[in-house]
Amino acid sequence: MTGPGPGAAVPQVAVLGTGLMGGPMARNLARAGFPVTVWNRSPDKAAALGLTVAPTPADAVRGAGAVVVMLSSGPVCDAVLFGDAGIAVQLAPGCLLIVMSSIGRDEAQRMAEKAGALGLRWLDAPVSGGTPAAEAGSLSIMAGGTAEDVAAAAPLLAALGKVVHIGPAGTGALAKLVNQLTVASTIVAVAESLLLAEAGGADPARVREALMGGFAASRILDLHGARMIAGDFAPGGPAKYQLKDTRAARDVAAGLGLHLPVLELADGLFADLVTHGGGDLDHSALYLELKRQNGRLPADSPLKT
Amino acid sequence: MTGPGPGAAVPQVAVLGTGLMGGPMARNLARAGFPVTVWNRSPDKAAALGLTVAPTPADAVRGAGAVVVMLSSGPVCDAVLFGDAGIAVQLAPGCLLIVMSSIGRDEAQRMAEKAGALGLRWLDAPVSGGTPAAEAGSLSIMAGGTAEDVAAAAPLLAALGKVVHIGPAGTGALAKLVNQLTVASTIVAVAESLLLAEAGGADPARVREALMGGFAASRILDLHGARMIAGDFAPGGPAKYQLKDTRAARDVAAGLGLHLPVLELADGLFADLVTHGGGDLDHSALYLELKRQNGRLPADSPLKT
Repeated sequence: MTGPGPGAAVPQVAVLGTGLMGGPMARNLARAGFPVTVWNRSPDKAAALGLTVAPTPADAVRGAGAVVVMLSSGPVCDAVLFGDAGIAVQLAPGCLLIVMSSIGRDEAQRMAEKAGALGLRWLDAPVSGGTPAAEAGSLSIMAGGTAEDVAAAAPLLAALGKVVHIGPAGTGALAKLVNQLTVASTIVAVAESLLLAEAGGADPARVREALMGGFAASRILDLHGARMIAGDFAPGGPAKYQLKDTRAARDVAAGLGLHLPVLELADGLFADLVTHGGGDLDHSALYLELKRQNGRLPADSPLKT
Repeated sequence: MTGPGPGAAVPQVAVLGTGLMGGPMARNLARAGFPVTVWNRSPDKAAALGLTVAPTPADAVRGAGAVVVMLSSGPVCDAVLFGDAGIAVQLAPGCLLIVMSSIGRDEAQRMAEKAGALGLRWLDAPVSGGTPAAEAGSLSIMAGGTAEDVAAAAPLLAALGKVVHIGPAGTGALAKLVNQLTVASTIVAVAESLLLAEAGGADPARVREALMGGFAASRILDLHGARMIAGDFAPGGPAKYQLKDTRAARDVAAGLGLHLPVLELADGLFADLVTHGGGDLDHSALYLELKRQNGRLPADSPLKT
């Protein structure tokens, strides 16, 4: 079911961060019947949503039963929630704190502890699916926290997508890093595959079509493969954020003593892409970086040779 | 449309090689209305199909308008078709020679030339989708050859799956190698992802479920990810064949002067898996090899430590 439902107590929801993802998510919450107040560092983006805009995070969360956080990084979330002017102390006990940014597993665990100490309920609930899924309300939501708190958040999260309860606090964040490991390395695999097809004299568009019918089929081959073939690298998911996530995944792997060779390889290739001027291109521009490393970059490429 | 269709001239079809893939493919051709004669090196496998079994390839192709070849490797296909007792010289000009085994691009091009010199029509038309798709008649078929010959083969191929015409002779074989590059490296990506999830304290089954809802979704995560989680490594696609294909893809890449780092990495990991006793396990057993390399192999593992 989407929305608070008839007869249910409808909590006031604050959304902190209304960028490419948070904006459409706030709109979907409002559409589902939740009274939504938003705050964003750049007020212009928030104003364009047509929702109630608060001038500060503290104003946004006043009276909130749930706070959805979609800010740019773990440290930014931590500062806004628990820093010197952090709003967590201001929230009523029992308030649901739902951090949907992609953050580190350890960051999530530390924030969950701070939230618990204040009597707040906590979920780390990052998402996958990008802006199209944020707009369609069809995000894949990976929730870390107690089953009770996932159940309490379920009506709200249903307005945003499909939630899977991964495990205790921190495992939602971990699942998102795992997701990004899969995405990053599948992008590399698809980029290599299309380059081999092209260099070997096959039409990469036909190869993509054929591969989509078999075991090689993936959402990355479908969507990002189409971008690679079309040369359309407008973001979407900027390469610099993909790199941030492979870095975070590497940190978690290192902390666990794991050697994950594809993760390390993909991380290195995305770092190369960013170094050569591709940080603000879509992550599918890894195709260009691979061409660059093989001396096959087209003359009109946005990358530096 | 499936099958020869009413009123069309129905060619006699010979199927050479009735193993895990060729067997169900021959059955689907017969079901679609083609008169099928089969030959297999081990006659038992052929006899179990309930079709006309020939004692030799030469007997199988007598009067055939099309020959479907699904033997174990490029050299075996070449020997049976063009070797000392090869059957190609025996075929009527205009006969369709359709090699559906996974073979090298250069092998395909050389065989296409030999076929052309005999006045035969040629397609390299390898497949993806494995035995489930072979049985369901839903293979993805990657065809290299002329548009005319693809059109001539279309009614026959429609009984086996969906065909995409990739380009000239050799590009079907190339597309299959590209497919295997994607499959091999996606298996590595999924194996690393599930290992990171498990080592980090999340339930890998929940993580797989959540990832299937977003950009990380793939057929490999769906099917092979489920096998990794269940510990079910009965083949399916044996790791030793995956290694044969990554080797062939590496050879093509090397011939083109391409450096494809994920292909090289996946090839090395599948070689490690085979070295440690996993050659006859399903290719999803790369999950075990990755655990082995991280000192996390369960005691009852079929791999050598």
